[in-house]
Amino acid sequence: MQRYFVPVDNWEDNKVSIGKDDAHHINRVMRLQPGDEIICNHPDGKAARCSILVSEPDRIQAEIDEWLKESVELPVNVTIAQGLPKSDKFELVLQKGTELGASGFIPVQADRSVVVWDKKKAEKKLIRYTKIIKEASEQSHRNKKPQIHSLMSVKELVRESSTYDIKIFAYEEEAKSEVYRSFGSIVNDMKLGDNVLVYIGPEGGVSDDEVHLLKENGFVAVRLGPRILRTETAPLYVLASISYQFEELGCR
Amino acid sequence: MQRYFVPVDNWEDNKVSIGKDDAHHINRVMRLQPGDEIICNHPDGKAARCSILVSEPDRIQAEIDEWLKESVELPVNVTIAQGLPKSDKFELVLQKGTELGASGFIPVQADRSVVVWDKKKAEKKLIRYTKIIKEASEQSHRNKKPQIHSLMSVKELVRESSTYDIKIFAYEEEAKSEVYRSFGSIVNDMKLGDNVLVYIGPEGGVSDDEVHLLKENGFVAVRLGPRILRTETAPLYVLASISYQFEELGCR
Repeated sequence: MQRYFVPVDNWEDNKVSIGKDDAHHINRVMRLQPGDEIICNHPDGKAARCSILVSEPDRIQAEIDEWLKESVELPVNVTIAQGLPKSDKFELVLQKGTELGASGFIPVQADRSVVVWDKKKAEKKLIRYTKIIKEASEQSHRNKKPQIHSLMSVKELVRESSTYDIKIFAYEEEAKSEVYRSFGSIVNDMKLGDNVLVYIGPEGGVSDDEVHLLKENGFVAVRLGPRILRTETAPLYVLASISYQFEELGCR
Repeated sequence: MQRYFVPVDNWEDNKVSIGKDDAHHINRVMRLQPGDEIICNHPDGKAARCSILVSEPDRIQAEIDEWLKESVELPVNVTIAQGLPKSDKFELVLQKGTELGASGFIPVQADRSVVVWDKKKAEKKLIRYTKIIKEASEQSHRNKKPQIHSLMSVKELVRESSTYDIKIFAYEEEAKSEVYRSFGSIVNDMKLGDNVLVYIGPEGGVSDDEVHLLKENGFVAVRLGPRILRTETAPLYVLASISYQFEELGCR
């Protein structure tokens, strides 16, 4: 059943009203009629099975049949802070990261990012990224849409990180040292509801200054398996592993 | 250090000879000179640190300094059989799947594949795919290149599957049944060196006939977390989870 995110103001008693873009999708793409069913996601994470009552080109009104008892949200809140990569790789991270259960994304202007965003570009990008996240959330049947933050420097990320319970960053050099804390042991220590911040450097990796700053502020360096992952593959490894541990292995 | 796969005939005593394409990469892209070091991968999975002796436009000769004691290969052999997806998604599976440690890939012409390959197209594609796998293997510092098989039907895949120890397929309906075998318990039961075959359907999923055929022939249906993953994300989830379990969690 198709799923739509509906803003909080569009819910009233047992009725839901769906605006222009999604109405277009319901009418033209899904070709749904009055009486057909959809799932509407409330911004607070709940979801309801609804029947279409009124179908107009710009507006759909639906009735709530049943609130669903389901949770497909990762039991820890994982925010991916990604050093700006080249071309459209950040879009891949957003789409796949949303499918894999991320809570949020922070684009980071890192020392070794080849790409530089000015303010105007950043604003334009954020609109596009919000759309990618919304569509991926609906497609993967998420109850909550991940949040996309504004562009930060690594310094700003470190300031932001004070509200997180667990902070890690991918650092391939770490795997070469004899004593290091394994990613597995860190995930094992995560508790339900923990806020986890994961920093992944861009293609060129993490600069020495950044390593120093991150370590000084409680970020733990981890390797993600023994192979060298591309920058856009690393966050997917982190999210799949945490999902596997909590949702499939049943270690909670 | 840059890494090159060198065919078996190019190894002689303590010398390695590198052919045209890689010589071009060494000369023009990496701009390496005699005396500079590279890593050469032997087809049997070993790797050696080598110094460049002679540098010609079409040929590099290098001397073996040291055989490396390293293993970055996943301790179970995972072959991804992928129902042909749309556009260039199979290329994403090959590139990311290689980074994440897959042993092999089988393109499958599934009931619900929108794309159909004729023989000529399949041959052309295989050449391109072999290149993607080679480059991803080098980039991720693999010792062994994954194998790419020829196009198969699901029937042919079932025949091929008799040589595998563990056979699973992703089936989102499975998650809805009350009793099912969790992916975590299946990975837990894998032993070092096991040959694992994973079938992922295309965008439209697995047809009823295919589900029947697969289950009848020892394939176990699994869900991959509670969210609905796109066809190209599912194999990455499988590989990251197996890597996490064996290489980071230390469950062997």
